[in-house]
Parts: sequence; C-alpha cells; structure tokens
Amino acid sequence: MNILLRMQFDGGAYHGFQVQANAPTVCAALQNAMQALFGARPDVKGCARTDAGVHARDFCVSFHSDTAIPLAKLPLALNSHLPDDIRVFAARQVDEDFHARYSVQWKEYQYFIHNAPVDDPFFLHHAYRENAPLDEDAMRAAATHLQGEHDFAAFMAAGSAIQQRAEETGTAPDTVRKVLWLEVDANPLPGMQSGQSVCITVAANGFLYNMVRIIAGTLLQVGAGRMLPDALPAVIAGKDRALAGPTLPAKGLFLNRVFYPQDRNI
Amino acid sequence: MNILLRMQFDGGAYHGFQVQANAPTVCAALQNAMQALFGARPDVKGCARTDAGVHARDFCVSFHSDTAIPLAKLPLALNSHLPDDIRVFAARQVDEDFHARYSVQWKEYQYFIHNAPVDDPFFLHHAYRENAPLDEDAMRAAATHLQGEHDFAAFMAAGSAIQQRAEETGTAPDTVRKVLWLEVDANPLPGMQSGQSVCITVAANGFLYNMVRIIAGTLLQVGAGRMLPDALPAVIAGKDRALAGPTLPAKGLFLNRVFYPQDRNI
Repeated sequence: MNILLRMQFDGGAYHGFQVQANAPTVCAALQNAMQALFGARPDVKGCARTDAGVHARDFCVSFHSDTAIPLAKLPLALNSHLPDDIRVFAARQVDEDFHARYSVQWKEYQYFIHNAPVDDPFFLHHAYRENAPLDEDAMRAAATHLQGEHDFAAFMAAGSAIQQRAEETGTAPDTVRKVLWLEVDANPLPGMQSGQSVCITVAANGFLYNMVRIIAGTLLQVGAGRMLPDALPAVIAGKDRALAGPTLPAKGLFLNRVFYPQDRNI
Repeated sequence: MNILLRMQFDGGAYHGFQVQANAPTVCAALQNAMQALFGARPDVKGCARTDAGVHARDFCVSFHSDTAIPLAKLPLALNSHLPDDIRVFAARQVDEDFHARYSVQWKEYQYFIHNAPVDDPFFLHHAYRENAPLDEDAMRAAATHLQGEHDFAAFMAAGSAIQQRAEETGTAPDTVRKVLWLEVDANPLPGMQSGQSVCITVAANGFLYNMVRIIAGTLLQVGAGRMLPDALPAVIAGKDRALAGPTLPAKGLFLNRVFYPQDRNI
C-alpha cells in the first residue's frame, strides 16, 4: 500500500532531506527507522528537497510498504526509532499513484527575522537576526510586486538542478512560478525582551533553488532602507540574480504547509 | 560602581545559575566573560538560584566594578565573551546597596506544558509534554485556591536551604509566601500541528525550593482529571509534600520577570 507520513523536523543537525553519501539527512534517519521497524528500506519520496539546516513544520513523504503495523500506530512506532528532532505525527493510506513530491499543488514557507540589537537565546537557531530597524510597511509594499505569476530567475541561486538540466539540453530553464500569497507580519514574540519577529510567509506552486531565502533577503534590504519597494518590478524584469538581495541563512526557514489536490485523498 | 545586568539564558546546558565546583553554571560563564573583559572576577549576585536546566527570559545580576567600559557598550562587550545561549541585553548603574537577590520585590515564572500526543521538535527543550487532554477550566479553578498568602510547605521539595537551616536551628522553616497571581492560559502554538500549549504564569514575593514545578505538577494532575480543583485547600492545609502533585521537569520552566521596588532605581 502507498502510505503518506506527515512529520516535523528541526533541520539544524541535517544536510537537508535528500539522502547524501557522507552526511546525515532527514530521509536517511527515516529510512533507518523503517529498516528497524519493517526490516526493509523503502524508497521514500519527500515533498521538497530542503537545504541543509532548513526546518519543517509539516513535511510530507510517501512510500510503499506492506507493513502489518496499523497506520494509527505507525507514528509512535517510527518515533521510537527516530532521533528526537524528527517526529512523525500522522500516517494514512493514499492512492497508489500518489507521490509526495509530484502530487504537490502548492507549498507554504515561512522565514523568521528577529529584529533586535542582541541575539535571543531562544530564537538563535530558528531565526535570522537583523540589527537595523525594519520598516514592515515598506516590506509589504515590496511584497505586492512579487505576488502572482512571474519569471523569478533573479530569485534563483546558481547550481540548481533545473539550471543544470537547461545547460545540458541547451534550453532556457523554466523559471516561471506563481506566488499565491506573500505576507509580512511583525509581532512582538512572547517573552522577547527587545525587538520583534518579522515573519515572511510565502506560498507558491513551486519554488526555485533558494527562492524563499532570496525573497526574504530582498525584503530585508527594503525593510532596512537599502532598496526601495518600487525597485522590485525592475529586479524581476532584469532576471539577474545580482539585482536581488542576499540569500539569508537556512536557520530562519521553515517549510510550513504542503497542499495536495482534494482528489488526491489527503 | 554597582552595576545591574539584565540577561536571558537557555538553561539546558547549565547546572543552574550558582557557581558549582565541577559543573558548568551560568554565573561561572558570566564571571569568565568578566575575567576576559575586566581582568578581574567580580562577586556576582543573581536574582534567583535557578535549578539545573531552568531557563530565564529576564535574569538580573548585580556586581561592583570600576570598569571604564561605557555601560551602554557593556552588553555587547560581555556577549562577545559569552556562549551564545547566554545573552546580556541591558546594563545600568544602580544604588550602591542594591543587591540583585535581596532587593527583589517579586518574581514571575512561567511553566510551559505542550499538551499533545506527539513531541514537537521545536518545543522539545522548552516545554513538558503531557499526553492526556487537559481541562484548563479545572486548572484555573484549582489555581484560584493557591492565590494569596499561604503556607506552601506542601509545595516545597526536600533538601532546600531554608529547610536545612530550620533543622540546624531546631525551628520551623518559614514556608509562608504570597502568590500575587497564578494564571493558566491555553493557546495553540504557532505552527504546532496538534495539541496546544498550556502556560502557567505565577508571580510571588518569594518561592520555595521547586515550588513552581510542584504547583505546575499539581495543576497538571487537576487538568488531567486525577485531582479535583476543590482538593487544593486540603493540600495546602496538610503541609505535606506527598499531598501535592509531582515536580515537573526543569526544561519547561522560565524565570520570566523580576521586579524591584521603584526607589531601587531600576
């Protein structure tokens, strides 16, 4: 049967989701737990290829297995074999042709910026700290330009799989994506002594390599007054990575939600 | 001059605040930073003797120093010599006779319970997880009995300094304290996939050994239906540790705020 797992992980200790030869990954940890539990190592499909250090609040994977363990008990059984920074919280049967990655309709990421002069020990590993006071209204104005369908070539890091494939085939990479929403929320975090949290939430039908971290870095430039909100249309039109802002570190990035079409039985 | 520092720390790696012979403590880390910065190791008074693993969002210390470093620059200077799970966020001069511990008027602690069937990787080290669904209304009803001035002997762990002193002098320990407020808030935590956070906030003019963790453990028993809210008056009157609930683990406990009298120049 085809099984969907929903899980959370703190990515700080992992080199992303995808299995790598000589580095710990979330998928390898999951397959180790399956090996212990099923006596087999299923081919696990993840909903995204998250980078090293990226976190996930709702990561979906699918795999085929003929396990006799009732699905309601599978999260607990897998968790007993997983490191405590990876937790499975749901399991259910899905259509045979469901694929955790190819069936995705859209995904939502969040990027957290701690806007304060001093680090906060409780957000150190889950937010990027920016010292300069941020103008959230300017960030929101910039964000409106990025919403909708655009060629996001300026917001893609070099070395992506789609870029390599385009070079190999001598074609232009398809860098058009549709941003469904892009919001900037500023909140005082509970118990935070100074500053506040600026959360960037972005949903799209697909993301280019480092796209969220470059969008966050560009909005940060705008918020800190180093770029004008109205510069965004030219950044998009230029299709040049050098025009956009810096790639912010992975530690502030969370895969927040993954949506599949209703008829995919999720 | 007498200097007050306000700091935050993640207590997970420390055996509490107070210096101990063979274990890392927050005070020792702070004194190491002062040694590097001042070339001296001042006597540092902390606002509380937090236990191993307890966190602090606003911990105050005072010490005397003739440092030439401007106080506005002292947090940054100290932070450059401190491990990143300890951050100083403010420094100011106070009256010569101010003492971070003896001058305290009241302190506020928070205890976080993650009420869910599965651990959350992002709250693993900063909350205690309870599987049984909690009835927050029952917890609030129980909490009202603990507000005000009471003899909290039933909420004190054995082996406290005041108990030892009482035994040495052959007198009864003074276990009367005034709880200024005790609140139970239930919130869905941002991004949490299942369950919710139950936060117990308690302020008092003083706390007995493990008092907050025993209060939290008692309210947890009530919330889980293992004790009735109206049992609390008899628990208090019994002055017997065995009548109260278990001591919850340190990792869910935060020293949240420390208040000094206005005329103490804070």
